[in-house]
Amino acid sequence: MSDSAKSHYGDESPIAAFATTPGNSALTLIRCSGKDSIELVSSVFSPEKIKDAAGNTVIHGWIIADNNKIDEVLASVFRSPKSYTGENSLDICCHGGAAAGIAVMTALKNAGFRDALPGEFTFRAFMNGKLDLTRSESVMELVSAKTEIGRRHAVSRLMGSLEKEIGEIKQRLVQVLAAAEIYLDYSEDEISADSDEAAGRLPNKEIAVEALKRLKKLSASWQLERIYQEGVKLVIAGRPNAGKSSLFNSLLKEDRSIVNELPGTTRDWIEAFVSINGIPVRLVDTAGLRETSDSVEKIGVERSRKLLQEADVVVYLIDGTQGFTKEDSAECEIWNGKKPVIFLWNKCDLALPPKPFPKADIHPVCVSAKTGVGLEELFSAIGSNLPKHDESSAAALGTERQKKLVDTACFALEEALVMAEREEPLDLIAPLLREAVNSLGEMTGEISTADILEEMFSRFCVGK
Amino acid sequence: MSDSAKSHYGDESPIAAFATTPGNSALTLIRCSGKDSIELVSSVFSPEKIKDAAGNTVIHGWIIADNNKIDEVLASVFRSPKSYTGENSLDICCHGGAAAGIAVMTALKNAGFRDALPGEFTFRAFMNGKLDLTRSESVMELVSAKTEIGRRHAVSRLMGSLEKEIGEIKQRLVQVLAAAEIYLDYSEDEISADSDEAAGRLPNKEIAVEALKRLKKLSASWQLERIYQEGVKLVIAGRPNAGKSSLFNSLLKEDRSIVNELPGTTRDWIEAFVSINGIPVRLVDTAGLRETSDSVEKIGVERSRKLLQEADVVVYLIDGTQGFTKEDSAECEIWNGKKPVIFLWNKCDLALPPKPFPKADIHPVCVSAKTGVGLEELFSAIGSNLPKHDESSAAALGTERQKKLVDTACFALEEALVMAEREEPLDLIAPLLREAVNSLGEMTGEISTADILEEMFSRFCVGK
Repeated sequence: MSDSAKSHYGDESPIAAFATTPGNSALTLIRCSGKDSIELVSSVFSPEKIKDAAGNTVIHGWIIADNNKIDEVLASVFRSPKSYTGENSLDICCHGGAAAGIAVMTALKNAGFRDALPGEFTFRAFMNGKLDLTRSESVMELVSAKTEIGRRHAVSRLMGSLEKEIGEIKQRLVQVLAAAEIYLDYSEDEISADSDEAAGRLPNKEIAVEALKRLKKLSASWQLERIYQEGVKLVIAGRPNAGKSSLFNSLLKEDRSIVNELPGTTRDWIEAFVSINGIPVRLVDTAGLRETSDSVEKIGVERSRKLLQEADVVVYLIDGTQGFTKEDSAECEIWNGKKPVIFLWNKCDLALPPKPFPKADIHPVCVSAKTGVGLEELFSAIGSNLPKHDESSAAALGTERQKKLVDTACFALEEALVMAEREEPLDLIAPLLREAVNSLGEMTGEISTADILEEMFSRFCVGK
Repeated sequence: MSDSAKSHYGDESPIAAFATTPGNSALTLIRCSGKDSIELVSSVFSPEKIKDAAGNTVIHGWIIADNNKIDEVLASVFRSPKSYTGENSLDICCHGGAAAGIAVMTALKNAGFRDALPGEFTFRAFMNGKLDLTRSESVMELVSAKTEIGRRHAVSRLMGSLEKEIGEIKQRLVQVLAAAEIYLDYSEDEISADSDEAAGRLPNKEIAVEALKRLKKLSASWQLERIYQEGVKLVIAGRPNAGKSSLFNSLLKEDRSIVNELPGTTRDWIEAFVSINGIPVRLVDTAGLRETSDSVEKIGVERSRKLLQEADVVVYLIDGTQGFTKEDSAECEIWNGKKPVIFLWNKCDLALPPKPFPKADIHPVCVSAKTGVGLEELFSAIGSNLPKHDESSAAALGTERQKKLVDTACFALEEALVMAEREEPLDLIAPLLREAVNSLGEMTGEISTADILEEMFSRFCVGK
């Protein structure tokens, strides 16, 4: 029906989208939302009485088009405001496979629904006051969670842990700001002479200091959260024929909780996700890049270097049958000390023990990528080079957007405190406090613009 | 909980399965069924009052494990007998992505559910009298339907068109059989002397003849139905460098209704599904097989030959810039007349018109696989070589199993009629009639054994 190029997040037209991936599954779920959505569905539904259905009930029936039965479905009816979006809405559960879902979607579009934009259901939920922005974002975090820890942290934000923390910090800052502004609004006569304000001091400074501490803790949480989301980049390096590809494959095979068997996970021939101690690890094999034919050799080496630069952890393979060569030595000079490097003495089933290892402070792990010997030790060596779990239930940041806003608030608040320390006038300090408060308001969405919201929700997947 | 190696279709334990593919989708649906399923779910659900929920209602809440919130879900509650399986059951709609669904499933299994076997939900629906076997099978046909026509025919069977047709035919045969058996059960004295039976003739023979006609029509329907399900095999052949791969790629790109963009559809580098005039066509490109390096050339040519033997339609490419060569001629001799062959005069943008075409009765289609010229004509040539649509709403067979049983019934009935023609004794004819009746009973599942059912349902996907 409507041209999706013209549709935008602000309009209130009825929307529909696949909420599950159509494919060889038993069922396909289509979500519909909009003021008239129940009436529109009833126009292609038998029995028609669905339009009188109470909220939170499931109606069994058929989708009909041109008097033909399209598919036998279950339609869950939700009535505003008791729905995900806050609007009237329906979840239509049709048969799986390619054809059934597409046919039902076509009937819905002919009835007046348009394709939902990415994240548009959650956008409407936010606009209707069902979720703040941090909880909206956690919905997408949950969908893209790659590990159990990632899921748990996203659920914690969905439950409102971050919203609550931000709310509390903001409330305290508003208290500080209000006191400062009261002083600015009233004449000196009206303020008691021995108050902080009268003395030109920032009132409730200790509250601001405490708030800054909490904000800094939040800001610091992002480092680990990002790893839970994006994974630790672990690059396998070493000279040609050191056994990099064998190791890559062994790690994939060994790891029982491998994530990338699920459809939709990014993977190409040199990269794969594994979960080590609950932390998602992006294994990168530089083998293919290096051991190419001569003509592209140079490009390959350059790409390897770049991958190594981006690595969080490097696993460096030494061919034990060749020993620690000059090239190995040169290679190691580049990386050692700059980032965590785990040295492996590979082909240990054939090689001599790594006795003449040149650096006394390095204890290489003896492995055989082929037979699997030593992989357990390698796993624990990798584990000890990864950031430690944070099993506390403390609030943590979930997105880059949140990190930026918290940092803006930190920066403004820090500056305000420095100025307060120097006893600079309150009318210079108050705007900084306001900036911090506004940043936190933007985080939860109390303060927002159409542009920011559109930019944010368009990163979501369709159907959410 | 229970070991799935030990679980079997007949037991009544509570079962759970993913009904949608976990992946990067907004939602994941998990189905649960079993006598105690609602109580079991309530043990890991908040609010617990879900166990008192009325049938066909949707409860919003959280899945809980070890006092941790696992995921925010919608649970649709169905109460026996008003459910898909006929048992108490629930559809749990959790967040999409890899981690959330797996965590919820783990919680459900810890609560006492076991993994459902393939098709076990539909098996239970059948056992509880919700569906006959032809309708059970149509559920799987619907899920694997690749085109709109395939979907439509599956829906027709789901609505009971085949069940009804088989029921009517069987009822008539039972009538014939009953009359024959009455004669066998009673002495000659009790039967009127001028009746068919007294004369040793099969009573109601014309009813049996009519039934056989209907069965044969059903049997014949399978040829087209199978094509709707599996697709027409269209093989692209031609000499090396005639442009086979370019054509293959152009056909994929040109066709708007391409099916294989959806996940889960089988595809390898030489095969792809496209939909031409609503009929699924399996495009097979023999290019890769043929134009390999010398050492495997021979194997490649043999595989091409085999593919061509299995083809339903052959598209033979001639390199228009080279003209119709001796090799083309030799190749064409093999296929022409044996199966539908469409000749293409390729590279028509560079080549001379195909005037010196050696066979007067062949009118090659001029195309340029590269520029796309002539593809429309090729599509209609392919279309006219495909079996014609059957847009009638007549009942048709949906599975190989049904085809075998109908053929058994046809065979027995034909033999019975031949014997009746020869006026052989009714006690020899009656068992054949009974065999036909039993085959039809087996089709709908009135007559069934545990083995047959298990074999049948185990072909289903999990979650159905």
